[in-house]
Amino acid sequence: MQRYFVNSNQINYPYCIIKGSDYHHITKVMRMKLLDKVYISDNVNSYIAEIDNIDSETVSLRIVEHLEECSELPISVTIAHGLVRREKMEETIDYLTELGCDKYIPVMLKRSIVKMDESKLDKKLDRLNKIAKEAAEQSHRQKVLIVENIINIDELIKLKDEYDLLFVASPYASCEDNFKKYIDNNTKKILVLIGPEGGIDDKEIDKLVSNGFKLLTLGKRILRTQVAPLYVMSAISYLKEY
Amino acid sequence: MQRYFVNSNQINYPYCIIKGSDYHHITKVMRMKLLDKVYISDNVNSYIAEIDNIDSETVSLRIVEHLEECSELPISVTIAHGLVRREKMEETIDYLTELGCDKYIPVMLKRSIVKMDESKLDKKLDRLNKIAKEAAEQSHRQKVLIVENIINIDELIKLKDEYDLLFVASPYASCEDNFKKYIDNNTKKILVLIGPEGGIDDKEIDKLVSNGFKLLTLGKRILRTQVAPLYVMSAISYLKEY
Repeated sequence: MQRYFVNSNQINYPYCIIKGSDYHHITKVMRMKLLDKVYISDNVNSYIAEIDNIDSETVSLRIVEHLEECSELPISVTIAHGLVRREKMEETIDYLTELGCDKYIPVMLKRSIVKMDESKLDKKLDRLNKIAKEAAEQSHRQKVLIVENIINIDELIKLKDEYDLLFVASPYASCEDNFKKYIDNNTKKILVLIGPEGGIDDKEIDKLVSNGFKLLTLGKRILRTQVAPLYVMSAISYLKEY
Repeated sequence: MQRYFVNSNQINYPYCIIKGSDYHHITKVMRMKLLDKVYISDNVNSYIAEIDNIDSETVSLRIVEHLEECSELPISVTIAHGLVRREKMEETIDYLTELGCDKYIPVMLKRSIVKMDESKLDKKLDRLNKIAKEAAEQSHRQKVLIVENIINIDELIKLKDEYDLLFVASPYASCEDNFKKYIDNNTKKILVLIGPEGGIDDKEIDKLVSNGFKLLTLGKRILRTQVAPLYVMSAISYLKEY
């Protein structure tokens, strides 16, 4: 059954109104008819709803069941990622959604080789958030991963009070610098910074550590920048869900 | 420093002879000169060696240091993977190498939508093993992941005595069906089967379970066939390396 994410203002219980690209998807791509059922989620609650009416611009759904789902991780994880090329970023966002990540923040670091055309930034961000929404629908998440605008290292450090723990993945980390050492039952929200292709500059590491970031190891092998975020999410899942 | 995998018969201590594509890589791509250093590994030992001589077909290396490395997982993991398209398989092999996997076996299952042209199989397997070798060199593994030829479910079941534990990733698994329940300090070698895009057929699951495969959960979210193997390797690393 197809899942659609809606804003809570689209729901007027027991009805939910869908327009725009999801309208197009329901009527033209999926070719659904009256009484066909879908999942809907508003990032907090999930429902089963059936199609009550279709006109030229809107689908009206009637909620028939409130779902008690929980496919979310017990810890909210933000991945801050040294800026990488568009295709890698899109793939990473897609996979991270599936693995339960809540937020993705691209960070401009010294060794990021990608240049950013600021005039195209808004359009790019729209596209990335659309990828995240579609990935969330496909993997039956209850929340959509949020893609934030690109920030620099000082702006990243300013976010520190929002998190219980901050990590920076680093080859300098010892085998003791792992999640098990730091994460406990009071940990609700963490951020993990992963470097771009060329890694993170030593001075940047120093700056992060002196601002409360903890070095983090990701196993004994050298992981590429697109694999490291997937390792982080899988490790958190295994640590906290079992 | 560049790493090259060699067969043990290329090593006549303290010398190592390199020909063919690695010769080309050393002399033409890397443009190395006398006394330049490289890592060499024969799947068991790793060394630092320096270039002792270059002629028109061979590079002769002299071993200068025997390395005490260990970037290998404490458990040998084989991923058996429902047959997927070539590009996905290549990406999966690339990422699995980086994450410490030892063997990749493509398995023809009922819901595999990919057809195989058997006449091209040998060539394809050569290419996949080449990808694995290059990925191992890049990620400084001591072993190269081995890609096996495609087998069917009955051939897979026949392999069972080679492994301490066999798993099949399944949405039917309960949250208790996880590695922590089964893997202990005596576990040296495991195999995990992951379905193709359409998942594994119920009858196939029954057959596997009645032949000793254990159901395995991979977190509470639905993972695509190319993400599930990465989750498996990351989870094993987190479980056994920390």
